[in-house]
Amino acid sequence: MTTSPENTKIGFIGLGLMGKSMAKHLIQSGYSVTVFNRSKKSMEELRSAGAKLADAPEGLASASDIVIDMVTDAPDVLEVILGKEGVIATLKSGGAVIDMSTNSPDTSMQIASKLAEKGIGFLDAPVSGGDKGAREATLAIMVGGEKVTFEKCLPVLKCMGREIVYMGGTGSGQATKLVNQVAVSIHTLATSEALLLGTAAGLNGKDLIRVLTGGAANSWNLANLGPRILQRDFEPGFKVAHIQKDLKYVIRLAEKYNIPLFGTSVAYQLFGALVADHGGEKGTQAIAQVLESLAKREIKSSS
Amino acid sequence: MTTSPENTKIGFIGLGLMGKSMAKHLIQSGYSVTVFNRSKKSMEELRSAGAKLADAPEGLASASDIVIDMVTDAPDVLEVILGKEGVIATLKSGGAVIDMSTNSPDTSMQIASKLAEKGIGFLDAPVSGGDKGAREATLAIMVGGEKVTFEKCLPVLKCMGREIVYMGGTGSGQATKLVNQVAVSIHTLATSEALLLGTAAGLNGKDLIRVLTGGAANSWNLANLGPRILQRDFEPGFKVAHIQKDLKYVIRLAEKYNIPLFGTSVAYQLFGALVADHGGEKGTQAIAQVLESLAKREIKSSS
Repeated sequence: MTTSPENTKIGFIGLGLMGKSMAKHLIQSGYSVTVFNRSKKSMEELRSAGAKLADAPEGLASASDIVIDMVTDAPDVLEVILGKEGVIATLKSGGAVIDMSTNSPDTSMQIASKLAEKGIGFLDAPVSGGDKGAREATLAIMVGGEKVTFEKCLPVLKCMGREIVYMGGTGSGQATKLVNQVAVSIHTLATSEALLLGTAAGLNGKDLIRVLTGGAANSWNLANLGPRILQRDFEPGFKVAHIQKDLKYVIRLAEKYNIPLFGTSVAYQLFGALVADHGGEKGTQAIAQVLESLAKREIKSSS
Repeated sequence: MTTSPENTKIGFIGLGLMGKSMAKHLIQSGYSVTVFNRSKKSMEELRSAGAKLADAPEGLASASDIVIDMVTDAPDVLEVILGKEGVIATLKSGGAVIDMSTNSPDTSMQIASKLAEKGIGFLDAPVSGGDKGAREATLAIMVGGEKVTFEKCLPVLKCMGREIVYMGGTGSGQATKLVNQVAVSIHTLATSEALLLGTAAGLNGKDLIRVLTGGAANSWNLANLGPRILQRDFEPGFKVAHIQKDLKYVIRLAEKYNIPLFGTSVAYQLFGALVADHGGEKGTQAIAQVLESLAKREIKSSS
């Protein structure tokens, strides 16, 4: 049986930059949604949007059929799902957990196996598309897990994303997302190198983005983060601390199969330099500032 | 006055992978087109498509109002435009030359200055979009030169491209194209790293491309060259020898402004390794084969 707003209550854990928008889309689609977040401010925002509030993952799970988490890293996921006050304590048999945060395929395997003992289904379903994709419900969602659980949960995922692809067994969603981050991190570097060189050579930044995105140099990154760099907007759509965390898992995955990641490694090092200088709270497009600092030159929108 | 098929004869020099398609679009748009190419085979193909043939750039120019060249490198451009039997010998005052190949802004300055002495206009108007963009007349065209020459020639450029952007004075088109190649070369590496890691981890290559292009990892490169890699099609849309040539000019431009190009440099080195192993005649997507050879593992479409 697939889920619908009539027969399914959803619990949502993790109301960060993206989680907040994703939970709101579920409410707008007619689902009864209970939320939990460590910071209370986001909780109040969701209450205004129509959500019920829970004090802990445990309490949230007892009121839900499907629990979605969008927290930061593997330890957080393990705590809210498998921890003492975690979802596993109260979610009923036949329920399902969807981990939409990014971590490692190994973590997915560990969680799926524990939940299976209690008759609870599990999907690893990380997303791509940043704050913009979350706000506009146009996320790409890459899903691993049992096919039957995927089919059951598909209507819920459709409220939050556009391109939803079943990638295979448990962990396949996370593996896909890590591969996604390989491309994302390298593209972020490409955008910054292109804009720094182009504006140094006296080209107009906006015209440059327009003509490059019209041809073989087009990327989501250049089209969406390029203009932010020109406006010197380094606010996070996606935080540097988060891409660093993801790339840590990417490199572990690559080591497992002996895959040489030249471009990814360079980007990883430069994100590290960025954190050393500015911390991890800026958006990934701030990698441009590492290059700027080496070149002693800023990217300027028009020459 | 802008050009039209009624008042303008076009000469086209250089019938390579892209030039051939571009010249055909001019003929289909109603222009009278005379062509010249070193290899006779392409000349015959264009004759069948309705072109007149010339024995040398000189003869071609005497029959033309606008001469377009799409040859390989700066020495070729200098020879066909400024050489003894070049366009400059016979193109009449008031005519224009459009260099659509990729070389350096310095070469554009040199050519523009010599042509100006004879009252001939000049545009540097390199393109992006590969063989596909040339075939479908959807190229991005980045144009430098006098604005009046740009406006005069715009109708001609429109027959071959979709996104046509005036970037500024002489050399601006080449500078833009070099910046374009920064992004293109890094994206090519990103596509290869992503597909090699993903398929090694057991993911289906087609599904991987579908979901990645649906989110923040999307690029023209992944969408267009990714599937070719999965099919082990390393035929050139754009040749390795040509990206190497372009990156040589990129690096000179970056040196001029002290811009650090981490990603571009890595791609440049790997293209070099590819040439050492396979020569320069494959398509740029063959950079995947350098990574494959290091990983002792091939990218396979499905696991």
